[in-house]
Amino acid sequence: MNTENKKATIIGGGPAGLAAGVYSVRAGVKTAIIEKLFAGGSMLLTEKIDNYPGFPEGVSGYELAEKMKSQYLRFGGEIIQGDVDEVFFEGVRKRIRMKDGREEEADALIIASGSSRKKLGIEGEDEYTGKGVSFCAVCDGAFFKGKKIAVIGGGDSALEEAVYLTRFAEKCYLIHRRDEFRASAYLQNELKKHSVQTVLSAVPERIEGDGKTVKRVILRRNKTDEMLSFEADGVFISIGQKPNVEFINGKVEQNPAGYIVTNYKMETSEKGVFACGDVIKKTLYQVVTACGEGATAAASAEKYLSAM
Amino acid sequence: MNTENKKATIIGGGPAGLAAGVYSVRAGVKTAIIEKLFAGGSMLLTEKIDNYPGFPEGVSGYELAEKMKSQYLRFGGEIIQGDVDEVFFEGVRKRIRMKDGREEEADALIIASGSSRKKLGIEGEDEYTGKGVSFCAVCDGAFFKGKKIAVIGGGDSALEEAVYLTRFAEKCYLIHRRDEFRASAYLQNELKKHSVQTVLSAVPERIEGDGKTVKRVILRRNKTDEMLSFEADGVFISIGQKPNVEFINGKVEQNPAGYIVTNYKMETSEKGVFACGDVIKKTLYQVVTACGEGATAAASAEKYLSAM
Repeated sequence: MNTENKKATIIGGGPAGLAAGVYSVRAGVKTAIIEKLFAGGSMLLTEKIDNYPGFPEGVSGYELAEKMKSQYLRFGGEIIQGDVDEVFFEGVRKRIRMKDGREEEADALIIASGSSRKKLGIEGEDEYTGKGVSFCAVCDGAFFKGKKIAVIGGGDSALEEAVYLTRFAEKCYLIHRRDEFRASAYLQNELKKHSVQTVLSAVPERIEGDGKTVKRVILRRNKTDEMLSFEADGVFISIGQKPNVEFINGKVEQNPAGYIVTNYKMETSEKGVFACGDVIKKTLYQVVTACGEGATAAASAEKYLSAM
Repeated sequence: MNTENKKATIIGGGPAGLAAGVYSVRAGVKTAIIEKLFAGGSMLLTEKIDNYPGFPEGVSGYELAEKMKSQYLRFGGEIIQGDVDEVFFEGVRKRIRMKDGREEEADALIIASGSSRKKLGIEGEDEYTGKGVSFCAVCDGAFFKGKKIAVIGGGDSALEEAVYLTRFAEKCYLIHRRDEFRASAYLQNELKKHSVQTVLSAVPERIEGDGKTVKRVILRRNKTDEMLSFEADGVFISIGQKPNVEFINGKVEQNPAGYIVTNYKMETSEKGVFACGDVIKKTLYQVVTACGEGATAAASAEKYLSAM
């Protein structure tokens, strides 16, 4: 059957969804992206993206989001504002229900709903996000050469980020609210080898700066209520990440943490349902990997539709 | 061990290699790319790249190559001119020997040597490449809306490309030198369903144009020597592709066609050797997928070096 009358719907308008959209519309498939807020996804949380290939001087997350969005729109893609409540795969066509009751139908579904970073919820966190506060060492570490960095968290990711950041930072603190780390012994040993200074039983109270950039983080010792101030140019918050999968409700295979399991074609366990970007289980969560997976998901969806 | 004294070497300076380079140097790893000709790889063969996310109006292959190259150089990456003859994995360090006898050593090796398109070797083919002559339907099909297209080839890829191009083309010919197709019955049936006009037992003699764009393709019936002229705005040459793997000499696992087999971390069968881009077995061969894989390969190489 021809793909002309077939429709692909993409949930999520971040880099994975927009790249999938570009490839899908360009392949002649009627395509819609359902986006909850603003197209761009987690790119919008990033002041400067330095490692997306093709922008030698870096590009602001907002600008890159706008570029990808207008590229998608130029080819004739549609963006539907909507907050997906649940998806249904009973019939040949997939059904997507929004929280306001509207429904969409699609012949192929691409899930690109991303993930959410857990936040501390303290003063200064939102204000300085992208201005010293970061949620991604690989993305932003290189901006802190010779600077002081505080990493907050106690799991594997936090320890990995702290160790990684020692290659840039003049001084690296790792701050954790408990009196020991949950992370593996191997990583705890790496911490010592890389001279990360650990601060245990300490809860971040607020992040302070001069309005432009972060200057220090204020901690409270949770056993003594003593207040501590650590000078820091960067605060990396690594207290967890969770995939945005509430609407999936177990209808495709997920790993224990909830990330969608795909094969190298970006196919999920459900025929005609594909996934890409931060919502899938993979090894590197970056704009460029999300885009590559989005393109692959769209190509696989297009093949699926052609063979329908 | 710290990655500071460790070196990653990348073979190939196309999008996969440059993206790997950006991620590798930015992670603080000493990194060199060995490039035979000019950084950019197959991007340099493409007049306009319309589907690399982030360039809403498209970008010339040359410009995108230059941007990725200067991004890599800005972070402190090195480019070595050299034509790799063979790689050796006996010791802990990998050895790379060039055709002129020079040698390089590396702790981690990333193979991003791409693939080569088989060419017809006829008059007009090189002259009009990027000006109507294309080697990639997914890349360039959308430029030929409402136009006449001739696809040349008889294998699965050629038939897939012809079927794919019917969604854009007003008229689509498929030209093959033999009197039957090697491709699957399913695809041959698709050809009919999509009204692709097949021209069998015909050998392309030359591609003609007005200096700016392709106008027609001249064929010779190989049984009668009769000459035929087909008006065409686009000529898609799909007579095969081969990975650039001569220097590997069976030292990592390859599929029967020679493409390197990797897992989702871009690890090959050899520890410390990674691969990405057009040289690997995968589902979609595009600049953006190459870049995503390059980033992933570099992240995996960095983890490998950190754990050394």
